[in-house]
Amino acid sequence: MLTRIGILGGSAALYQAMTSLGHAAGTDFAGPPALTGGKPGTKVLVLGAGLAGMLAAYELRKAGYQVQILEFQNRAGGRNISLRGGDTLSELGGAVQKVQFAPGNYINPGPWRIPYHHQGLLHYCKAFGVQLEPFVELNHNSWLHAGNAFGGKPVRYRDYAADFTGFTAELLAKAIDQHKLDDPVSADERAHVVAAMRGWGGLTADGAYRKGSISSLRRGFAKPQGGGVDGAPVPSDLFARDDVMRSGLWQWMAFHERLDMQTTMFQPVGGMDQIGKGFNRQVHDLITLNCKVTAIHQDDRHVTVTYNDMSHGGAVKQAEADYCVCTIPLPVLSQLDVQVGGPLKAAIAAVPYASSVKLGLEFKRRFWEQDDQIYGGISFTDQPISQISYPSHGYFSDGPAVLLGGYMFGPAAYDFAGMTPAERIEHGLAQGQAIHANYRDEFRTGVSMAWSRMPWTLGCCSMWSEQARKTHYKALCAIDNRIVLAGEHASYIGCWQEGAILSSLDAITRLHKRAQGAA
Amino acid sequence: MLTRIGILGGSAALYQAMTSLGHAAGTDFAGPPALTGGKPGTKVLVLGAGLAGMLAAYELRKAGYQVQILEFQNRAGGRNISLRGGDTLSELGGAVQKVQFAPGNYINPGPWRIPYHHQGLLHYCKAFGVQLEPFVELNHNSWLHAGNAFGGKPVRYRDYAADFTGFTAELLAKAIDQHKLDDPVSADERAHVVAAMRGWGGLTADGAYRKGSISSLRRGFAKPQGGGVDGAPVPSDLFARDDVMRSGLWQWMAFHERLDMQTTMFQPVGGMDQIGKGFNRQVHDLITLNCKVTAIHQDDRHVTVTYNDMSHGGAVKQAEADYCVCTIPLPVLSQLDVQVGGPLKAAIAAVPYASSVKLGLEFKRRFWEQDDQIYGGISFTDQPISQISYPSHGYFSDGPAVLLGGYMFGPAAYDFAGMTPAERIEHGLAQGQAIHANYRDEFRTGVSMAWSRMPWTLGCCSMWSEQARKTHYKALCAIDNRIVLAGEHASYIGCWQEGAILSSLDAITRLHKRAQGAA
Repeated sequence: MLTRIGILGGSAALYQAMTSLGHAAGTDFAGPPALTGGKPGTKVLVLGAGLAGMLAAYELRKAGYQVQILEFQNRAGGRNISLRGGDTLSELGGAVQKVQFAPGNYINPGPWRIPYHHQGLLHYCKAFGVQLEPFVELNHNSWLHAGNAFGGKPVRYRDYAADFTGFTAELLAKAIDQHKLDDPVSADERAHVVAAMRGWGGLTADGAYRKGSISSLRRGFAKPQGGGVDGAPVPSDLFARDDVMRSGLWQWMAFHERLDMQTTMFQPVGGMDQIGKGFNRQVHDLITLNCKVTAIHQDDRHVTVTYNDMSHGGAVKQAEADYCVCTIPLPVLSQLDVQVGGPLKAAIAAVPYASSVKLGLEFKRRFWEQDDQIYGGISFTDQPISQISYPSHGYFSDGPAVLLGGYMFGPAAYDFAGMTPAERIEHGLAQGQAIHANYRDEFRTGVSMAWSRMPWTLGCCSMWSEQARKTHYKALCAIDNRIVLAGEHASYIGCWQEGAILSSLDAITRLHKRAQGAA
Repeated sequence: MLTRIGILGGSAALYQAMTSLGHAAGTDFAGPPALTGGKPGTKVLVLGAGLAGMLAAYELRKAGYQVQILEFQNRAGGRNISLRGGDTLSELGGAVQKVQFAPGNYINPGPWRIPYHHQGLLHYCKAFGVQLEPFVELNHNSWLHAGNAFGGKPVRYRDYAADFTGFTAELLAKAIDQHKLDDPVSADERAHVVAAMRGWGGLTADGAYRKGSISSLRRGFAKPQGGGVDGAPVPSDLFARDDVMRSGLWQWMAFHERLDMQTTMFQPVGGMDQIGKGFNRQVHDLITLNCKVTAIHQDDRHVTVTYNDMSHGGAVKQAEADYCVCTIPLPVLSQLDVQVGGPLKAAIAAVPYASSVKLGLEFKRRFWEQDDQIYGGISFTDQPISQISYPSHGYFSDGPAVLLGGYMFGPAAYDFAGMTPAERIEHGLAQGQAIHANYRDEFRTGVSMAWSRMPWTLGCCSMWSEQARKTHYKALCAIDNRIVLAGEHASYIGCWQEGAILSSLDAITRLHKRAQGAA
């Protein structure tokens, strides 16, 4: 059939056919919306200058609408943010951090990586001139650490992965060889499975996973391959199978197979906030900063938003528009006086937000590269910091460098959010020391971002339960008279910038249709 | 014990201890050799201005020796080479190719990637100012293709890997649950293995690998996750287990776990030849190009090398020195008049070289990115071209781009080397079409490098058999009176630049010791 389509319709038609057969796939992004014919003078008020809000403004202005954005903070970008030396970070509770990083260094405390299938975001990065570079997620040479496994010592990903794969293959090959799986596996398939286990698992000819060149060519040698007379390598010892299985470290192998964590990932050159800046370049003239919205009212003709103008002593002001795109994070929105119907009100109240804390730690030098040969990627631990992510830029350079010293989610995030900034750093160093013995010696300065303490979002991102999704999701997305919500919370790609992009496009496409119908 | 060392000796001592316990490892590179005290006036003649030769010259001059390099080609770098528009490639048999790539585009027809553990090469890249960028090897969104599997259609790596992992885990979990593996697995371990299979394999709570959100969150959805009202994803169908096992495509999952193919890999910014150029910047004043060596003689006092000076009509000339570091590839060296002992002579003749052909194909646009969302990485096929490797640079850019359209080794390389350059391109296009339906439409121009037809190497690189290694390796590396060999062939890291580096360092370190002993 494909050949036929190819002959009849050319390669474009063939590509369409392959897509519909499931051969090509990104996220649910079909290109930028071609909205035209917005009624002149029709005004849309956008609340929030994050990616969702700025994108809505950009596309709606292009479509012919008059657009205004009100933003709570003194900067555009929302959760798209990078922290650099000289920046000040204030949080609820009063703690203020002054970032001390060396010039050129930064941490991305919010979004920090872009999967290849987030085609909406990638499209606008290109359209707005944001340069991208690979973000290294999987690193075979990084460390895996569990307090109760391998004597509490970290093990190399490659050592662990080789042994886990080898022992798994050995066990299954044994079961097949001993005809213990005759029921589920046909006689015809048996030989294929055994061959697969041997090749994929790195087994010897007799079906065993054991110490030798086959296993060492995956996990590494005790004495590495060299040059000249003494170049012969010496195979490395395997871990004990029971340790490998009991450790639970296989979870990090599975982690890298998740659709959202697969290769190839990207990050903007120079910091994640280059995306926010790129969006801002398009719509900065539409944005009023320092507007603390207190009420969103509507009737059959208008939306009226009341806000405190914090640039002018908190003076109470109002903005009017025909329609409103509201991207205010739900923990904030749920506390405002919002005139919408019961279903949307219930939806706004129904979605809990994740608490998350990230640590950006600067060290005197790239000891992870120079001592450990770890270039980018992530070491994982079962301690609260959960991971140490090494920078995917500036490889091999001298001087101070910043890594992500902790990414707390769930209970660990609440614990860390309850600490002072200094305590967070101290805990990050103490835990990181279990992976890098020289962690404390090399440390220079650090910063922490406790998302639950950011007054403009009060949390990291939406965490829909399946039950809440069933009950409230459609209502959250539906246009309520003249108001529509947008943001990662109004998507199935929660906690990702792509969710904000696709939600925004969907919301304004529907709003445009509604506005045209009313015309 | 580690804590004790940490307390007593500080973190440097701890790091040393961790290294000796096998926790840190690169290749067998312990830093550049600190050679000093070379006797003034002692001359070393280096044959070949590839990486091994140039490095030997660089370090020996630093140690105090007088050094001269004779090079066969009209350029330094050896197999470290990149091809760009305007370059001319001549091969044995008379074929001449003029490369037509657009400005800025290139292919690396020799070495093309650098593993993280090739610490010798990485050291000199930094020392000589060669900038590196990540080379993407594993790409979950690339294609896997086998003519006799899945109806001959390519499948996404992520789809295949998810299903292979899932079915493997399901089979082993089943065997364990049914107590069919009681002998090899202790009662205590059983639960751990089952838990591992469920988590790592992406099984449902009842131990099955099946269509649903768990499997689709690895392999991708039929309708991807989206934003707004219609954002709900639809799970994708699984492949049939028998197809997955029978296809043999698991070999490409294993491929990425090989020590030499693991993440993070690098490539020089701007082409692999930036390394050769970096080395050349250090020693260009020592190199005489266009010297076709015909004889290498020695007595108790001197080495005498006879060569045709092709810059001067092939005039016969001689160069004398106290010692000689010979990096001439063995298929060439074995045809010269070389005055060495029987064991070294036998060794020189004993090592077959791989034949290899690479295709560099330029296309009008990055359709693999724009249509298929493949950014870097490799698609694999069981056709002779074996793979299509997408560029790990220039992501998201417009205009023509070059990919590696085939990497033939073994019998396929002999077949391709036997074709005209035009035929090689034609076969590359025909085979690539099985993976990219629009391959031919998008094609612009191409170049092929048949390594067996390069007169200065007559093959790609050394392919030691285990038997030959046992019999001849020590003799190949041993200093023969005043002559020592160096190059990837004199290493356990054959076919990699790191082998040339480490072999060269080992050879000159021994030669220096010998020269000092004779002083």
